[in-house]
Amino acid sequence: MNFHVYDTTLRDGAQQEGINLNVADKLAIAPLLDELGVGFIEGGWPGAVPKDTDFFARAATELNLKNAVLAAFGATRKVGVRASEDKQVRALLDSQAPVVTLVAKSDIRHVERALKTDGPENLRMIEDTVQFLRAEGRRVFIDAEHFFDGYRFDPQYSRDAVLAAFGAGAEVVCLCDTNGGMLPHWVTDIVGEIREATGGEGILGMHAHNDSGCAVANTLAAIDAGCEHFQGTINGYGERTGNVDLVTTVANLELKYDRKVLAGNLDDATRISHAIAEITNISPFARQPYVGASAFAHKAGLHASAIKVDADLYQHTDPTLVGNDMRMLVSDMAGRASIELKGKELGFDLSDKPELLTSITNRVKHSEASGYTYEAADASFELVLIEEVTGERPEYFQVQSWRAIVERQGRRGTEAVSEATVKLLIGGERIVVTGEGNGPVNALDAALRLALEKAYPETAKFDLIDFKVRILDQEHGTDAITRVLIEATDGQTAWSTVGVGANLLEASWEALTDSAIYGLIHAGVNPL
Amino acid sequence: MNFHVYDTTLRDGAQQEGINLNVADKLAIAPLLDELGVGFIEGGWPGAVPKDTDFFARAATELNLKNAVLAAFGATRKVGVRASEDKQVRALLDSQAPVVTLVAKSDIRHVERALKTDGPENLRMIEDTVQFLRAEGRRVFIDAEHFFDGYRFDPQYSRDAVLAAFGAGAEVVCLCDTNGGMLPHWVTDIVGEIREATGGEGILGMHAHNDSGCAVANTLAAIDAGCEHFQGTINGYGERTGNVDLVTTVANLELKYDRKVLAGNLDDATRISHAIAEITNISPFARQPYVGASAFAHKAGLHASAIKVDADLYQHTDPTLVGNDMRMLVSDMAGRASIELKGKELGFDLSDKPELLTSITNRVKHSEASGYTYEAADASFELVLIEEVTGERPEYFQVQSWRAIVERQGRRGTEAVSEATVKLLIGGERIVVTGEGNGPVNALDAALRLALEKAYPETAKFDLIDFKVRILDQEHGTDAITRVLIEATDGQTAWSTVGVGANLLEASWEALTDSAIYGLIHAGVNPL
Repeated sequence: MNFHVYDTTLRDGAQQEGINLNVADKLAIAPLLDELGVGFIEGGWPGAVPKDTDFFARAATELNLKNAVLAAFGATRKVGVRASEDKQVRALLDSQAPVVTLVAKSDIRHVERALKTDGPENLRMIEDTVQFLRAEGRRVFIDAEHFFDGYRFDPQYSRDAVLAAFGAGAEVVCLCDTNGGMLPHWVTDIVGEIREATGGEGILGMHAHNDSGCAVANTLAAIDAGCEHFQGTINGYGERTGNVDLVTTVANLELKYDRKVLAGNLDDATRISHAIAEITNISPFARQPYVGASAFAHKAGLHASAIKVDADLYQHTDPTLVGNDMRMLVSDMAGRASIELKGKELGFDLSDKPELLTSITNRVKHSEASGYTYEAADASFELVLIEEVTGERPEYFQVQSWRAIVERQGRRGTEAVSEATVKLLIGGERIVVTGEGNGPVNALDAALRLALEKAYPETAKFDLIDFKVRILDQEHGTDAITRVLIEATDGQTAWSTVGVGANLLEASWEALTDSAIYGLIHAGVNPL
Repeated sequence: MNFHVYDTTLRDGAQQEGINLNVADKLAIAPLLDELGVGFIEGGWPGAVPKDTDFFARAATELNLKNAVLAAFGATRKVGVRASEDKQVRALLDSQAPVVTLVAKSDIRHVERALKTDGPENLRMIEDTVQFLRAEGRRVFIDAEHFFDGYRFDPQYSRDAVLAAFGAGAEVVCLCDTNGGMLPHWVTDIVGEIREATGGEGILGMHAHNDSGCAVANTLAAIDAGCEHFQGTINGYGERTGNVDLVTTVANLELKYDRKVLAGNLDDATRISHAIAEITNISPFARQPYVGASAFAHKAGLHASAIKVDADLYQHTDPTLVGNDMRMLVSDMAGRASIELKGKELGFDLSDKPELLTSITNRVKHSEASGYTYEAADASFELVLIEEVTGERPEYFQVQSWRAIVERQGRRGTEAVSEATVKLLIGGERIVVTGEGNGPVNALDAALRLALEKAYPETAKFDLIDFKVRILDQEHGTDAITRVLIEATDGQTAWSTVGVGANLLEASWEALTDSAIYGLIHAGVNPL
């Protein structure tokens, strides 16, 4: 692969607010990046960050990368010190990474104000450090920091920094929009001028941040202008607005430029993006291009029939090419066609059952008019389908009553106590259980769970992972209708249910019981 | 303003998965858009969507827009029907919106396969509908649907559609990247060709979606190529990956192109973006350009002191220009200034009381870290100020205890019963009252109100008008922290309070009591 896809999730991506990767996290992410097929994985800054030193040490023995080469990130030597005697530079060698990527100042203002030296010394720092590492057998890439801002202020100096790096033997000079404020036409002009200055010698790269919302376009503009290397992160992680989203960029190159740039398969992208989100513990952004949960989700009922016939007319690319899927959202604008499509997605073929389709459509419309929403509650929708198709829903339990009590004795700051009692009939047996919790819904959940576990041990592994409340008609104050969405998991898959009521607890109870019923059906359990 | 900033949050933005706007929501969002200073607000599709018909009816009497003009979205007439006899077209007239934006097919494949008619009839549909609405005195904008994909397939037909629209009197033809897959250089080429074809007559517009991650760049490319109108949404809401983010685009134009395009002030953008997120109940995306919570957040490391001295070297623009702030994630220096400003706004001069300012700032930071938000709860913030400035908050009542019980006897469909008992001490007298409601918060509100009315008749005119719940840490399921925002009115002014707790009812109780206390203070009532 001549083109370089250079991943910096483990270094620059980890600068994102809320991300804190330990060595084990990094060792788990690197093989996923390798599987995706990036050419380079920047692992961190050995010598400067102790856990990054550890990462490279363990990576050498524990990782078995098939596609990617590890890169160690570091800085050019200190002012007035020999490269060979600079501890930080030596740590880069010690990391054993075949590639060393050196951040180098290329904006004269940063040289003078942050580095507190002069232009010529900074150029010597670049040259010395590159020559030293090259002599030690390393491939050397330069990250020309604040390059674009620097170039707009003093083009001559920024150009000199690039030429010094190439002159000393750097394989790549990556032009960094460190502050992320560039616009594509500025990138086009500046990369073009630099390419002219280098006479096409050496590989130019692009490192973009998304502060003006143009990271992807800036990266494509740089590639159009001759860059053969770009740096990005999975899910666009990074400081402030993030780095350029590596997958979006790669998908644009492979699917729209028709240029193969990954050693792996693009149809692994959605799975790998979500797997890495699990490790970083950052909720995936539903609207993320290509791999987001909503990226190929259609709501407009009016178009559903047309989408069914000519999917290609309604999507910019085939979602399966990135491992994603088209989804039809059932919403209040939904018509028969989208319900039929949704049914098919869930394994119910309604195409030759027009009366059934009509009755389901009417029921969904009626429910959505009274506040239900099925677009975020697939499991509740599937229960509706089961009920309409089979004439009933499996009766795992009958509810005789439930009650929740919340009480606070004393003044502000005293904790309130919540308890709930549920009375169920299961297989003829009456079960009365009281649960406690830190709130009424939590207590109801605890009581329902305790009651069901006695009869259906499978429910023990169900776990609530998300709970959302929406007040629907906000003009009525607390007198409004409440909608609750609950997401549960059995450790392998997750499902969502919805409940609606004048009463938050009624709505929660409905969503909680739907959730349990759905979980039991999908565990293959028969009602007692 | 010659340039059109056209907001479609209420129409296309509402297509986003998880967004479901009712009429009250739309009536709350429109004034915020107007305050931001967009030129046009697309309110919905009257005639096709019943709640949109209601929105326009109520907007005519309830909204008092200063900057923006309302636009009704609709479609060209049906195949083979006169425009004047097409019910959907008549509904657009009935909406009384000064601007009608008609979606028109401009991709021959969609004409033939979705509309199931031929090219010439579609052009007549465009011409007839534009002419009819123009004759009725409306300004007419055309949304040329699937324009770019259509143009790449059959440029002649797509061009004919644009020319037909202008020929019939359309003021704007907005070129839509409906599937969102365009790249900037394609947009540049195609808009340039269309501009040549129209000879510069008529206003061309751009409607972008973010499916290839290039919505902002595509919009800028279109503007560079001569478009004088663009459509976007607040926070980039919209189907699939969303529409172009209106604020990012506008900020790029005002701050980087140095082109004033808003009638309002860009420094309201962050506040308005977040206020609309509260209404849609979609968590703001921290990495959103310009207005995101992380957009100007720096992980304070080696460069912390440099960032403080030379902030401009480390940020692409001044965050205060969009109403945002630089944040240092380790040693946060932000906050004092805005708290001082907020205090002044509420009548507390803190400028010569640095210790007090520090203690308030620390308290607010601590509260916000535990889930409070004062952005949308002025009254709670004012109570904090009163407490810090005077050393106490007026004690209108002491709470001995409160209790809420919700109980349902019988199966699904049976109504649950809610009651709440509050025990207060007011002026030495013990008051025990039980209230009922259709839910526990409603019952608590009723009981508190009944108890207070005995001692403070002024509370009789207080009325709850809004109640919002947000689950803050959604990964813990029902075990999460809950934030409640309550808005109340005395018939003349409205005020908002916030409560936070592990327990929804605790959070609600806090917001309810704060709301009553604030109301009593502002009614000039002294504690008994």
